Amino acid sequence: MSGKKKSGVDIDLGNRCSKRAYELSKLTFKNREGKSGAAMMSVDGLFSNMLQFGEERIGISSDGIGTKIELAERTGIYNTLGYDLLAMVADDLAAGGFVPANISNIIDADFLDYEIIDALMTGLKNACDECSVSISGGEIAELGPRIGGYGDNMHCNWSSTAIGVLHKNLTSPLDGSALNSGDAVLALKSDGFRSNGFSLIRKTLENRYGDYWHTEKFENSLLGEVLLTPSRIYSPFITSLMDSEIIPTSVIHITGGGIADNFSRVLKSKKLGADLNNLFEPHSIMNELMNLASIDNQFSYRYWNMGNGMLVTLNQSEAEKALKIADQMNYSAKIAGSVNSSGIISIQNAGVSYNVEE
Amino acid sequence: MSGKKKSGVDIDLGNRCSKRAYELSKLTFKNREGKSGAAMMSVDGLFSNMLQFGEERIGISSDGIGTKIELAERTGIYNTLGYDLLAMVADDLAAGGFVPANISNIIDADFLDYEIIDALMTGLKNACDECSVSISGGEIAELGPRIGGYGDNMHCNWSSTAIGVLHKNLTSPLDGSALNSGDAVLALKSDGFRSNGFSLIRKTLENRYGDYWHTEKFENSLLGEVLLTPSRIYSPFITSLMDSEIIPTSVIHITGGGIADNFSRVLKSKKLGADLNNLFEPHSIMNELMNLASIDNQFSYRYWNMGNGMLVTLNQSEAEKALKIADQMNYSAKIAGSVNSSGIISIQNAGVSYNVEE
Repeated sequence: MSGKKKSGVDIDLGNRCSKRAYELSKLTFKNREGKSGAAMMSVDGLFSNMLQFGEERIGISSDGIGTKIELAERTGIYNTLGYDLLAMVADDLAAGGFVPANISNIIDADFLDYEIIDALMTGLKNACDECSVSISGGEIAELGPRIGGYGDNMHCNWSSTAIGVLHKNLTSPLDGSALNSGDAVLALKSDGFRSNGFSLIRKTLENRYGDYWHTEKFENSLLGEVLLTPSRIYSPFITSLMDSEIIPTSVIHITGGGIADNFSRVLKSKKLGADLNNLFEPHSIMNELMNLASIDNQFSYRYWNMGNGMLVTLNQSEAEKALKIADQMNYSAKIAGSVNSSGIISIQNAGVSYNVEE
Repeated sequence: MSGKKKSGVDIDLGNRCSKRAYELSKLTFKNREGKSGAAMMSVDGLFSNMLQFGEERIGISSDGIGTKIELAERTGIYNTLGYDLLAMVADDLAAGGFVPANISNIIDADFLDYEIIDALMTGLKNACDECSVSISGGEIAELGPRIGGYGDNMHCNWSSTAIGVLHKNLTSPLDGSALNSGDAVLALKSDGFRSNGFSLIRKTLENRYGDYWHTEKFENSLLGEVLLTPSRIYSPFITSLMDSEIIPTSVIHITGGGIADNFSRVLKSKKLGADLNNLFEPHSIMNELMNLASIDNQFSYRYWNMGNGMLVTLNQSEAEKALKIADQMNYSAKIAGSVNSSGIISIQNAGVSYNVEE
């Protein structure tokens, strides 16, 4: 079943719009040729771009937390979304081999509530403190009825741009070109949903429970709070790996498109595949939502993170050392499988597979 | 009359929220001390912040076009807003002495329309081509009913973050510390409203003409098109000045807060003032809106650009040469007055003055 049909979002149109925006953007790269800020792209479709400033190789990445913010509006808890915001951009930078340094954020609100702004920014500050990032700029815009959301309190949309430097032990961004058949695939456990796939989640829960779905019990908590679970940020782990001279052959941030699309992006240039027989299992809320939405694994692994927020491919000989570093940093990690030459991503636990050419 | 009362936007609350966000941001600066991306702030309240990456001094600035986008929804013209978007961030960077290099943009839409995305991005591309900037990243997010606007077509909010390098002929960002009594004030003419002050504009016109105010005739055009007039981008002029070793003592981008607030920001540290007796006159649409809104000059020069989109202070001996460069680049510029030690900004044309301590 197509993503379009299930989520209410037209993924094909979204891709066409993004492609057009990128085509037009590429036409401007010549404006900085030989100057500060020259584009140093190696592959199309990398989520963070590299810019040359003198001797410095700067990565830049923009993203927002999408409709996850509705969970804050429903629960009244605003001080965790900063983790989601930083995760989206810091982990995209990390996937390119960049060490996130600074984040600039934009809050578009209908009207302002001091306490909510304070809570949002306190969360972002805490996330930045944990990841050695500084908040180097920001903007709060009051846009009145151009912004909507749930309930009567202040509503806002929150996006950001982060910049970082290419890790000193890298000569070029991680783009999959270093991948080899036989590489180990290390999986990093997610804490729950990150900041994508919420359109389908909300639609499913509203159909099942009506407008107040967030107050339904789920295990020992409420649905609203379970879904608000903040994103784990993996960039400090990737930085530590590279600091220890363990250079991943690729780093895959599992966002919209799931393991299927995001892993494909790095595997396809060398027509590689992967056998994943030991991934983390999906969180129970993900299984519950699959049941309620009547979607199968083939769809869900293309849509949600299914328990695995980041994959790291690396030489088999370095896998144990990488796991040790993860453990020291309190990340749950394990060897989830290996890269092969099949051109197919096979997820054994879920009994599904994806052609990387798609 | 207070800005709060007239515009429907609570300026005091906005300032308190921005102040709190900045306080929390400053607490994170320590996270990058001695590392790439270390904050190198010289004054609080500068709109663009400087970050140290190796030998490179990078400026970063975030902003959006606010509710000006409603004019595109009303007129169906989407390919000029890119100038407004680039102007907001490039000219904030220029005000700090940075040469804008790259822009990353975020489009938050309710749903997508390929033609509108194409027009928006084409406008941004054209603006970037004129200003030697590259579009180095972007994100298009579909947020459904979290986004609203005028009419039935796709609605979106558009924001961006730009980065640039401190001009090679500067040792530190322009922050007003180089200002001296006696400096010439050069004014750069605006082409109309930029991307601020639109809440009051829309409210005023709706009160007067009803919902279809954009279709009213104004001079030889329609109100909607007059108000959509794209922002002139001044950063290429500031770069050219510095390339010619004319180093301004300050550069003031006239955005929200008008000449009063924005000029005060750089004048106040040395308790200087300015006598402005030869500014560009307000555009006729600004006079018309002042009449319709029943606001006086005291208010309007604190709110709109009133015909002057940027002020540049510089040594009197360099003023003529600066005017010549402006003329060569097709900017309308003139000497509008001079800096003095009064602590007061006096706008002779309009018969108003402002205490810079406010």
